[in-house]
Amino acid sequence: MTPSISTRLWAECVGTAFLLIGVVGSGIMAEALSGGNTGVALLANAIATGAMLYMLITTLGPVSGAHFNPVVTMAFTIRGEHAVKDAAPYIGAQIVGGVLGVFISHLMFDLDVFQLSTTARTGTGQWIAEIVATFGLIFTILGGLRHRPDTVPTLVALYITGAYWFTASTSFANPAVTIARSLTDTFAGITPAHVPMFIAAQIIGALLMVFVGAKIFKH
Amino acid sequence: MTPSISTRLWAECVGTAFLLIGVVGSGIMAEALSGGNTGVALLANAIATGAMLYMLITTLGPVSGAHFNPVVTMAFTIRGEHAVKDAAPYIGAQIVGGVLGVFISHLMFDLDVFQLSTTARTGTGQWIAEIVATFGLIFTILGGLRHRPDTVPTLVALYITGAYWFTASTSFANPAVTIARSLTDTFAGITPAHVPMFIAAQIIGALLMVFVGAKIFKH
Amino acid sequence: MTPSISTRLWAECVGTAFLLIGVVGSGIMAEALSGGNTGVALLANAIATGAMLYMLITTLGPVSGAHFNPVVTMAFTIRGEHAVKDAAPYIGAQIVGGVLGVFISHLMFDLDVFQLSTTARTGTGQWIAEIVATFGLIFTILGGLRHRPDTVPTLVALYITGAYWFTASTSFANPAVTIARSLTDTFAGITPAHVPMFIAAQIIGALLMVFVGAKIFKH
Amino acid sequence: MTPSISTRLWAECVGTAFLLIGVVGSGIMAEALSGGNTGVALLANAIATGAMLYMLITTLGPVSGAHFNPVVTMAFTIRGEHAVKDAAPYIGAQIVGGVLGVFISHLMFDLDVFQLSTTARTGTGQWIAEIVATFGLIFTILGGLRHRPDTVPTLVALYITGAYWFTASTSFANPAVTIARSLTDTFAGITPAHVPMFIAAQIIGALLMVFVGAKIFKH
Repeated sequence: MTPSISTRLWAECVGTAFLLIGVVGSGIMAEALSGGNTGVALLANAIATGAMLYMLITTLGPVSGAHFNPVVTMAFTIRGEHAVKDAAPYIGAQIVGGVLGVFISHLMFDLDVFQLSTTARTGTGQWIAEIVATFGLIFTILGGLRHRPDTVPTLVALYITGAYWFTASTSFANPAVTIARSLTDTFAGITPAHVPMFIAAQIIGALLMVFVGAKIFKH
Repeated sequence: MTPSISTRLWAECVGTAFLLIGVVGSGIMAEALSGGNTGVALLANAIATGAMLYMLITTLGPVSGAHFNPVVTMAFTIRGEHAVKDAAPYIGAQIVGGVLGVFISHLMFDLDVFQLSTTARTGTGQWIAEIVATFGLIFTILGGLRHRPDTVPTLVALYITGAYWFTASTSFANPAVTIARSLTDTFAGITPAHVPMFIAAQIIGALLMVFVGAKIFKH
Repeated sequence: MTPSISTRLWAECVGTAFLLIGVVGSGIMAEALSGGNTGVALLANAIATGAMLYMLITTLGPVSGAHFNPVVTMAFTIRGEHAVKDAAPYIGAQIVGGVLGVFISHLMFDLDVFQLSTTARTGTGQWIAEIVATFGLIFTILGGLRHRPDTVPTLVALYITGAYWFTASTSFANPAVTIARSLTDTFAGITPAHVPMFIAAQIIGALLMVFVGAKIFKH
Repeated sequence: MTPSISTRLWAECVGTAFLLIGVVGSGIMAEALSGGNTGVALLANAIATGAMLYMLITTLGPVSGAHFNPVVTMAFTIRGEHAVKDAAPYIGAQIVGGVLGVFISHLMFDLDVFQLSTTARTGTGQWIAEIVATFGLIFTILGGLRHRPDTVPTLVALYITGAYWFTASTSFANPAVTIARSLTDTFAGITPAHVPMFIAAQIIGALLMVFVGAKIFKH
């Protein structure tokens, strides 16, 4: 029995809030403890993010599908696997949840709740990285659902843990996460002016996978 | 066939002892080896704790439920899934086990067996962090049991490994662990005066999840 | 239903490209962030590579077998489990994909697309290490397929993550990866002159396992 | 169909050789790369050892039981789950394999094949640690086999990865491994004079679990 739309939106909102706590909270802690070794900090940040994703997708996947990501909702909608009328509410719930997660992270670490990031993340390399990162994320999800749906939580968790390292942008790959991360002037931040190009790249990467790449999983 | 109450209490006691060996022992080792880089130390501490949790919940889950945590016992009791008369013995066994685990850790590392921590862990941010950490832990357990009970050992292990990083308090989330950790003046310690507020925050976080949040897993 | 040969070659090419993005991209990031601590860099490199392998073998295993490695294709061909006529196209797709993955990594990190590595990797110890690494990789794959095929993605991912550390050569164990890594003058590179002996050692290690060692999985 | 005794001994020998390559090889690499930060080195050593254990127990468990450890063979023999006449050959194969693994590690890293360790590992704390470590290892194996046999490779791998950190001795927990590690004057070594007390402690820890602790898994 499919949960009601309000339960599903609640799940998307809570799940995206937890995801941002995972990303932003661990980034703050990692920067504080790593004594200037950014490698150690990103290792902790990547492991914490992956752990949170595994938990959230396992527990909320059966509730809302555990998108937590507007381009994932977009991809399922285009493929006809998500009702068109539910797309906008899902994306809204994800953005609200993401912002709440950032606020809660700030409260935990005794920081100002409202912040704007000053971290520059821009340039061709970064945009190509976001295309690659998002193409890979949708590839991971569609491939997993096609062949081994039970492994999707592990797949997405490990893919993102790895992608923090193998993409030049540390793999945002998620417009709701990108917007939320513009509201924190800490390790995980991105200055608001650089958000639109990241989101554009993420949409391109997702569409590339949906339209060009999906045939690989259609045999 | 349910094991006898004495076997179950034995399991809770031994399991919580092992858990504290995992937390306190790895904290001592990590601080000794990490050359002042607390990031490296917490990474080792988090991985060792997660590994121990996975082992203990897999092996003792079918024996006692593998609570090892008074607020987990409280949550199951409130939900009517744990006999009221067994709640106090469980919590007693957990506290005794936790303290024994700290003593054994000290013996292994040639430290004084009886210690009191001098590490301050206090303030609004820390208390919010414990509310978030414990809300998330109960969320993880209830969500896992609802949808994928076979994954609960992995879920809890990964959640706590991540939460060491994404909560400002490094996620105690467990009154028995908090009490036991007040008895070690090493990496994982918490000074006794700061224990009550941590426990209060943990109870609040657990109740929030049980009463407010549980509806998400009720469809 | 077996996918068509063109779909399978596409999967080998895309998969090997992703694998090289995982290896080379994370190597570049790791070197940049680790502040000269090569241990931290290799830890990140190993974790990112393992994560990518888990994702690729899970999603593409049911499509093409997820070889991504000429000596794996060779081993299956010798054992009569892969059509002889498909061996050369597979190996070609793997090499093309690997090279593309290196190019994409360079684009993401704003580096020259075409490079030649200047990193020396030679000597008896390194060659013995590649024999051991490749023997172990084929051992892992054949043993997993014989007893627990569902675990092969995890097996290969963890084996390679470990082998980055326990072999003196950091475990290339793959001629397509070796050729591709000669085209990047970054963390993961190998100077072209040292490629042939690595490939020879990899073939020896694979043949040793196929002919001598396979009996262990034949009972 | 049970494999022949010669196949099983071959599996124990090859498996223990691989295990020592995992332990000693990664120790050499870790010390070389970690720039004096022993925390980073032990993290790599622990992850590589766990990864190797997961691979070996998954692939060789169905062949020989994947003991690789005289006290594991002893425990199964006492419990009547391993033929008495096969105990000594198993233990012999494990010791021979372990020593071979150390030699191969030295060859890979261009070191003298024959070495004696000069690393002191002694004292009450270390011995208590080996009792705890081995008690926990047998606990892990018996608990896993009793309730979730499919998870034993993961259980043992994670337990040992954690135990490298939470026991003061870094958890040898294995007489064959202890003997073999006395033959390498590198990161993982133990001076031969300190081997007997480690082995005595390991036997005590295993017997404690078999005779006192096993009742927890008997309901």
